[in-house]
Amino acid sequence: MIVELINTGSELMLGRVLNTHQQWLCRQLADLDCVVSRQTAVADTAKEIEQAVRESLTRADLVITTGGLGPTSDDLTRTAIARMLGKEMKEDAVVLAQIQKYFAQRNRPMPERTREEALVPEGALVLPNPNGTAPGLAVEVRPDQSRSGNNVGWLIMLPGPPRELRPIFANHVVPLVKRLFPSKEPFICRTFRTAGLGESVVQQKIEHPLRSLVEAGLELGYCARPGQVDVRLVSRGINAEKLTAEATVILRAQLGADIYGQEDETIEAVIVRLLTARRQTLALAESCTGGCIAHRLTNVPGASAVLFGSFVTYSDEMKRKLLGVRAETLALHGAVSEEVAREMAEDARRVTESDYAISVTGIAGPDGGTPEKPVGTVFIALASLRETRVSKMFNPWDRLTFKEVTTQQALNQLRLRLESLL
Amino acid sequence: MIVELINTGSELMLGRVLNTHQQWLCRQLADLDCVVSRQTAVADTAKEIEQAVRESLTRADLVITTGGLGPTSDDLTRTAIARMLGKEMKEDAVVLAQIQKYFAQRNRPMPERTREEALVPEGALVLPNPNGTAPGLAVEVRPDQSRSGNNVGWLIMLPGPPRELRPIFANHVVPLVKRLFPSKEPFICRTFRTAGLGESVVQQKIEHPLRSLVEAGLELGYCARPGQVDVRLVSRGINAEKLTAEATVILRAQLGADIYGQEDETIEAVIVRLLTARRQTLALAESCTGGCIAHRLTNVPGASAVLFGSFVTYSDEMKRKLLGVRAETLALHGAVSEEVAREMAEDARRVTESDYAISVTGIAGPDGGTPEKPVGTVFIALASLRETRVSKMFNPWDRLTFKEVTTQQALNQLRLRLESLL
Repeated sequence: MIVELINTGSELMLGRVLNTHQQWLCRQLADLDCVVSRQTAVADTAKEIEQAVRESLTRADLVITTGGLGPTSDDLTRTAIARMLGKEMKEDAVVLAQIQKYFAQRNRPMPERTREEALVPEGALVLPNPNGTAPGLAVEVRPDQSRSGNNVGWLIMLPGPPRELRPIFANHVVPLVKRLFPSKEPFICRTFRTAGLGESVVQQKIEHPLRSLVEAGLELGYCARPGQVDVRLVSRGINAEKLTAEATVILRAQLGADIYGQEDETIEAVIVRLLTARRQTLALAESCTGGCIAHRLTNVPGASAVLFGSFVTYSDEMKRKLLGVRAETLALHGAVSEEVAREMAEDARRVTESDYAISVTGIAGPDGGTPEKPVGTVFIALASLRETRVSKMFNPWDRLTFKEVTTQQALNQLRLRLESLL
Repeated sequence: MIVELINTGSELMLGRVLNTHQQWLCRQLADLDCVVSRQTAVADTAKEIEQAVRESLTRADLVITTGGLGPTSDDLTRTAIARMLGKEMKEDAVVLAQIQKYFAQRNRPMPERTREEALVPEGALVLPNPNGTAPGLAVEVRPDQSRSGNNVGWLIMLPGPPRELRPIFANHVVPLVKRLFPSKEPFICRTFRTAGLGESVVQQKIEHPLRSLVEAGLELGYCARPGQVDVRLVSRGINAEKLTAEATVILRAQLGADIYGQEDETIEAVIVRLLTARRQTLALAESCTGGCIAHRLTNVPGASAVLFGSFVTYSDEMKRKLLGVRAETLALHGAVSEEVAREMAEDARRVTESDYAISVTGIAGPDGGTPEKPVGTVFIALASLRETRVSKMFNPWDRLTFKEVTTQQALNQLRLRLESLL
């Protein structure tokens, strides 16, 4: 089956917001063995939406649109598609009651305009939206309007806000797709996440050993991101499981501890898991990452059980006052130095009485670099009861990438340490 | 002129990475008065790339592709497009020398495969890439291969990594586009960022007052995001400047201090600017936001001059030990309470001797809620020399949205405070 995705919104075409639906929906659909073959974004004018939907219907069995179901004047998807398909719109009493309930529960008057969201194209399935007012809609498309050679196609419209779209997709679209398009052949997509190696090094390590599996039909893909490289294995058909299993063994042998996780696992989730299992605790002392390490770790549910706290000490004075870094160390070596990184980590561990502490001190830029310590210089220290290790890194990127890469490196050092102790 | 954007990459179709090129390039092009009319993403197979490029060329004067120029086996864009356009590929001596220099400077041997990146379709312009090995390429498209009725079209290929793509775009694509497609009519796109109001409230406040300008051709758009609503004004033609100026006056009158900035300005940038101008300083005490407020503020260059530091105190013990919150306050009211928020902010201000301190304490979930204090409950305190104000909010979203919305609210309270003092 062929699936296409259409995101509507002038703000997308003007580059005013990031399109997160593309990744989320493609991911969910791939896991249902419905790899999206094309994703399109157009402005939210009736003409553009109609043209894009019409073209997609000639290619795809299933077309999913996002956005344009709300109450404001630029919400035109529902009307444009109904008109294109020659379907009348009728007010749906159940939908209207749900919208009224939504406002009543929040003790807010219902704006008259919201009533439009209760209009449903004839014959459409309503996909309830408990987190908003506009429901999703699924419409069967007549053969003459859909991909030639097919009986019927389906068109599913979802509201734009992720908080509304995602539950509707999980609770209503997934069962519908499974029923309408049952999977015909096995399909496995697996992503391995590595940290600490460059893309070409990863490729060099695995390409040759995997060659015969690739010849047998395994698809191999790479994706380089700040501080990490993802390796993706895709296989289909009756050999999918065997190919994936064999490739996994080879990947693990070649990349070893450089693989920190699979699929969506993050380094911070691995760390919270390892520390929780071992009932150990962590403290942070962040200078140049400015809270990014703490932010990443606290995105993980359950982080509160293992992260005692973080000192974000941007100035020399705060490094002295909050952590107890010695004035002479700062004066002698400068704030960005192996010695200060070491003291920061040891002080953070001591003050909080945690098992481990990570510290980072560096120059994020754009200003503050010197010939000896250019922008991008950073020291990362990891302190435990037994020892403190400091590494010097060089991440000469823009400020945000610098923070991201440095955070990834600091977390990866702790992960390697924790895994080596297992 | 009509511009289309094609992002290639199987990882996009599998939903394994976020497509950030779409927003970035659409934004840059919109600012050149080249609003992208369609953005497409396809897998990086030769067939998909060819089909998408061929279709775009029938509609657009300029087609920009991203990705697939690298050295790995799934990098097929250059070859597929050259074949489609019937252009031969030749090794370019200058490009090859640059690639060799790139590796020599890094003291790394050049993998043989990288040599493929020196292949250039005949007649193509090379757009140098100082941050990587594969250059961008610009190719003129013959009339019979491009949009009917036009003389020639242009096709620009850019490498996938943002760190490489963005400088090539800024330094080479922008001048090229300006030369090839000089702007014909004035075009103004302006975004106003508001915080603290819902989308329907923003619309209610401005829709009626702006009606006559909309009838005169002003386009009005909304975009709701966690903790903020953006209002977008687009106008074209000889009246663009007048329409924008009049609409701006109305927006400012209707929304007042709820507008925190324009275009890409963030609340954190506004705060760093205001504090810097007034030589004032800030400290943070974060519980449930876990470092997110510090992270956002330290994304702003120059934050080190105004942000003394942040205490990320996740546990009760750390709130006591690092900040000095009284044990009896914690025991009597619980960590998530007005009283603890107040003490956290006052303690953070006292310890760091800063002018202001913000504290947050709440329940991010998914666990930890009670009937009296359900998940989403949060207290935000703002302490200054004169007074401490605490507000209670309710943000019953998922963990990450909770952190984002709470951070936005906390920063907005400080912004409103700083602006009211101007």
